[in-house]
Amino acid sequence: MSKTAAVLIADGTEEIEAITPGDVLNRCGVDVTYAGVSSPGEPERVDFMGGHHVPLRADCPIEELGEMLFDALVIPGGGKGAENLHKSELVSKFIMRHHKEGRIIAAICAAPAVVLAPLGILAAKHTTCFPGLDRRLPQDTTYCDMRVCVDGKLVTSQGPGTAIEFSLKLAELLTGAQNALKVGHAMLVQGM
Amino acid sequence: MSKTAAVLIADGTEEIEAITPGDVLNRCGVDVTYAGVSSPGEPERVDFMGGHHVPLRADCPIEELGEMLFDALVIPGGGKGAENLHKSELVSKFIMRHHKEGRIIAAICAAPAVVLAPLGILAAKHTTCFPGLDRRLPQDTTYCDMRVCVDGKLVTSQGPGTAIEFSLKLAELLTGAQNALKVGHAMLVQGM
Repeated sequence: MSKTAAVLIADGTEEIEAITPGDVLNRCGVDVTYAGVSSPGEPERVDFMGGHHVPLRADCPIEELGEMLFDALVIPGGGKGAENLHKSELVSKFIMRHHKEGRIIAAICAAPAVVLAPLGILAAKHTTCFPGLDRRLPQDTTYCDMRVCVDGKLVTSQGPGTAIEFSLKLAELLTGAQNALKVGHAMLVQGM
Repeated sequence: MSKTAAVLIADGTEEIEAITPGDVLNRCGVDVTYAGVSSPGEPERVDFMGGHHVPLRADCPIEELGEMLFDALVIPGGGKGAENLHKSELVSKFIMRHHKEGRIIAAICAAPAVVLAPLGILAAKHTTCFPGLDRRLPQDTTYCDMRVCVDGKLVTSQGPGTAIEFSLKLAELLTGAQNALKVGHAMLVQGM
């Protein structure tokens, strides 16, 4: 059976960081679902506006996912987008449920500091994030100035320019290094 | 006044190639419009499904753009997506009008061979495209195996892994090298 991943999007989400993982993972044979997160009190919806004014669309509102578990969760950045994900109680529960079940939690740019740190799941972990936002990481987290950082089931990365490397690392963890390498090569990723 | 660009999307469009230019150009201060292209005979719409199953959304159907002229047109690839753009008479007219007015025409991956070549605007030009599709380029076109190729107002590139370089080159042509370099650096693009 295919591995599965969910990518969370909201208004203000960084577009490259949202789209790249879905594209790369799908090429690697992972079944990807885009889940839309509206603001508390707002009606459920699937249409969002990215942080750099690129229209985004989800497969379904996060509400529809119910108790579903995915092999990996992907949390894109974008300052405003990460804040919007952070404010959602549904998102917090969704992430914590996956964390407790030992699923891969992947976050990039602002998301490690803004979404994951307040949930306490970065404690005693090696983590990266958008340089400068590391001051918002908890004191018991070891900040690593790396483009992609893997510590157990936690995968973190730095920004839009690292989104392909982040996505290929996730693909490697879910589907194997050979598959990820083959896909990165076919996509003409620099140095592959 | 801001420079303007339109990105064309359809069912099957390569997602990274569609989203990256809008994100990068917006960061550089370019006003970007996503125009949706439905199949001939179909009703106008803004919701599309990308070639790797990532949902895409346009700002408006291409029909709404009427006689508008943009400083640059961006044509993403994806085999099926490029075919869908090629089949649209509206798209052909839109591109030819911009070409005749001396605007920048930018195409990546399958789009140079599938969308631009049949319109005759690659004649006597240096062009790149997804490696292998160069056999579909016209004989009077010089294929260059480069990640990004600029010849006058024609900007071509090779695939999803070259999308950021393609977008930054466009940003440079529209808003200057210093601005593009600054944005590439802020996005953590490798080597910038």
